[in-house]
Amino acid sequence: MNPARSALLTDLYQLTMVQAYLEGGMEDVAAFEFFVRRLPDERGFLLAAGLEPALEFLEGFRFGPEEIGWMKSSGRLRPPFLERMEDLRFEGDVDAMPEGTVFFADEPILRVVAPLPQAQIVESRLIQILHYETLVASKAARCVLAAPGKLLVDFGMRRAHGADASLAAARASYLAGFDGTSTALAAPAFGIPVYGTMAHSFVQAHERETDAFLAFARSQPENAVLLLDTFDTEAAARAVVEMAPRLRDQGLSIRAVRLDSGDLAAHARAVRAILDGGGLREVRIFASGNLDERALLDLADAPIDGFGVGTRLDVSSDAPYLDCAYKLQEYAGRPRRKRSEGKATWPGRKQVFRRSDADGRMAGDIVALEGERAEGEPLLRPAMRGGKRLAEREPLSTIRERAKRELARLPEPLRRLGTRPPYPVGISRGLRDLAGRLEERVSRF
Amino acid sequence: MNPARSALLTDLYQLTMVQAYLEGGMEDVAAFEFFVRRLPDERGFLLAAGLEPALEFLEGFRFGPEEIGWMKSSGRLRPPFLERMEDLRFEGDVDAMPEGTVFFADEPILRVVAPLPQAQIVESRLIQILHYETLVASKAARCVLAAPGKLLVDFGMRRAHGADASLAAARASYLAGFDGTSTALAAPAFGIPVYGTMAHSFVQAHERETDAFLAFARSQPENAVLLLDTFDTEAAARAVVEMAPRLRDQGLSIRAVRLDSGDLAAHARAVRAILDGGGLREVRIFASGNLDERALLDLADAPIDGFGVGTRLDVSSDAPYLDCAYKLQEYAGRPRRKRSEGKATWPGRKQVFRRSDADGRMAGDIVALEGERAEGEPLLRPAMRGGKRLAEREPLSTIRERAKRELARLPEPLRRLGTRPPYPVGISRGLRDLAGRLEERVSRF
Repeated sequence: MNPARSALLTDLYQLTMVQAYLEGGMEDVAAFEFFVRRLPDERGFLLAAGLEPALEFLEGFRFGPEEIGWMKSSGRLRPPFLERMEDLRFEGDVDAMPEGTVFFADEPILRVVAPLPQAQIVESRLIQILHYETLVASKAARCVLAAPGKLLVDFGMRRAHGADASLAAARASYLAGFDGTSTALAAPAFGIPVYGTMAHSFVQAHERETDAFLAFARSQPENAVLLLDTFDTEAAARAVVEMAPRLRDQGLSIRAVRLDSGDLAAHARAVRAILDGGGLREVRIFASGNLDERALLDLADAPIDGFGVGTRLDVSSDAPYLDCAYKLQEYAGRPRRKRSEGKATWPGRKQVFRRSDADGRMAGDIVALEGERAEGEPLLRPAMRGGKRLAEREPLSTIRERAKRELARLPEPLRRLGTRPPYPVGISRGLRDLAGRLEERVSRF
Repeated sequence: MNPARSALLTDLYQLTMVQAYLEGGMEDVAAFEFFVRRLPDERGFLLAAGLEPALEFLEGFRFGPEEIGWMKSSGRLRPPFLERMEDLRFEGDVDAMPEGTVFFADEPILRVVAPLPQAQIVESRLIQILHYETLVASKAARCVLAAPGKLLVDFGMRRAHGADASLAAARASYLAGFDGTSTALAAPAFGIPVYGTMAHSFVQAHERETDAFLAFARSQPENAVLLLDTFDTEAAARAVVEMAPRLRDQGLSIRAVRLDSGDLAAHARAVRAILDGGGLREVRIFASGNLDERALLDLADAPIDGFGVGTRLDVSSDAPYLDCAYKLQEYAGRPRRKRSEGKATWPGRKQVFRRSDADGRMAGDIVALEGERAEGEPLLRPAMRGGKRLAEREPLSTIRERAKRELARLPEPLRRLGTRPPYPVGISRGLRDLAGRLEERVSRF
């Protein structure tokens, strides 16, 4: 069973609520929007990701016979509902910010407009997809900003929270500007470049470290990356220099060495000196080990050519979730608003407009009602109508280019990974008025 | 494609290293152990989980034609290796702590003994499975200790890091003592009880909150849980009291109400008084919203009967990863040791012995060599021989019972979620001597 393909990968209440909607004849059009309520303290901006897998999910949404069978046996769901579920498909409209777009709190990045049962039943999984890819893309974007010109590789598979998380992290980090991933499956799945080095076990399994280096260089004549820190990093670097003539005689070369522990900057300087002194100027230095954007900034001046960023990227360790929601903003032509303490939402179908300054830098956004006019470029674009995509799947290369342009357009403090001053996001007059009118109505009720 | 079923869900270097092993004739027996180097600052103990899915992974490990096809096209992997990969199966031995066992830093919870290529190639995915289930089970165990006698339900699916994570989190939290999950698919997948309430959208979609409550009570005549905080929590509780006679006339009842925002303790007290005053003493109060074990402790005295614990459980938000490793400890009959700065490991095949005090409480562990004798109960047990499991799959109910006994046996400070004093874990004389001998050998080399 592939859980990602099951329509039962949802919260039980989606099923019971949809049953109640159908029983009550509540099948009018609903508009739900996905947005982040508040940025994590550690983030000055977010990078939208996950639209492509979200559209794929919506296109493929259906209950199979096994799922209907389980629902029947659950005791809470009755035959008329189950019959409807057999034929249920997602036939709604989606508007969204393209993947790789920078966004901020309160800005919807995706809107679903569909008959209420369809729009409701996709909620949990849609949030799951958009949340995680956006979480990792946003973390990856910070790494990209922290290490300009360096090779960045996602190394996080083993501690990502599951199989599909590791694949999604490879995709999200690549679209944000990483050069590739160590996760082999990401190559056939998404066409992402894969990178590999060597593990400590490879060195330990050999009787001598140099035996391990030689065996690996022979086996990967063009791609050998040798891991130096199993016993003593500088001693290993000297061993690489000593074996270099022998390798050359055999037509072999070392592409790079990897540092994985200790003071990476100090080791990198020492190793660079040893390699250069031994005539191995072309051998690159690659570093890994508990890295994140802060560590990359600290290592900016070290002679390191590339980084493997693993666990802290794939779990977004300093901010492992976003305070995001998929909220009903309109039903049967009437705007809706939730007023829960600390969680009130802006009602109605919305559009986000972004202004630029003379240099093309982002200068401020306005969240407005869909029909309103505001200065700037509208960010939500039609993506699906009647359950069908409006365009071919966007190539990851296109999304990467967009993300690159977006990061270049960030205000300087955000580019430098600051969170202050916060980026200005205004609420339009029309939206404020609408929220006020709903407030009055609710108070009278 | 189900990524969890693909042998290519691994780091590229596993493939290139195994190719080099095979080219070098390095197919002797290797012993790898999975352990946590250091507990997160926020954890005084961990709860082992993931063995069953790990064994399932090992039993099913194989490369299919598509995977061989991709490897062929990768440019780094050559025909002799690919031919071997076509037939590769996992035929090794596994010893492990049963799921639901409490463990600490430096204690192996799983050992693989197999020909080096087999033991190496399963590394990345094996870590991924054991890491995440253990991470969530350990967080869930803390929630269980924080809220004795309360109903605990996993609500985290939407912000779990992917489809697999949400299912694994439902499993791991249930085995740690949760009562169930909101993730519908966990019922057919694992037989875990599923719970559901109602979302804000259901209330918002109706013209009046009371219309929503009535519709839901009719649709779920035995299971209705009404969400009170969409507009005003106490006003909604009064509405429930007012509609109760009408519901009774229709043979309907409300099982519980849910609070999801604001000061949960204050709302719970007010709502309890309103319900009791209205003769609805049997209606339970359920709370959710950014909960974790700290919040549960704070709410211990509030009149709340059950909790939905979501995001912070499924992403283990205060400690979103474990510093764990799967390390080569022995190859070709000789113990191996990694000495990387800050990451040195204890060599050889090991066993963990646990002593109990007169009350049956855990009193201290010793990590020893496999053959050594030490006081206490050995925790690692044979799980697989020659690639075949030694026993049927353990029912989750058995694992839950074990976890319950284990949590009851924790030293008092750890039961109270403290991390100090740390639980005593000693290293045996035999293991220290072996590490010392390897140290000398490496230094001479």
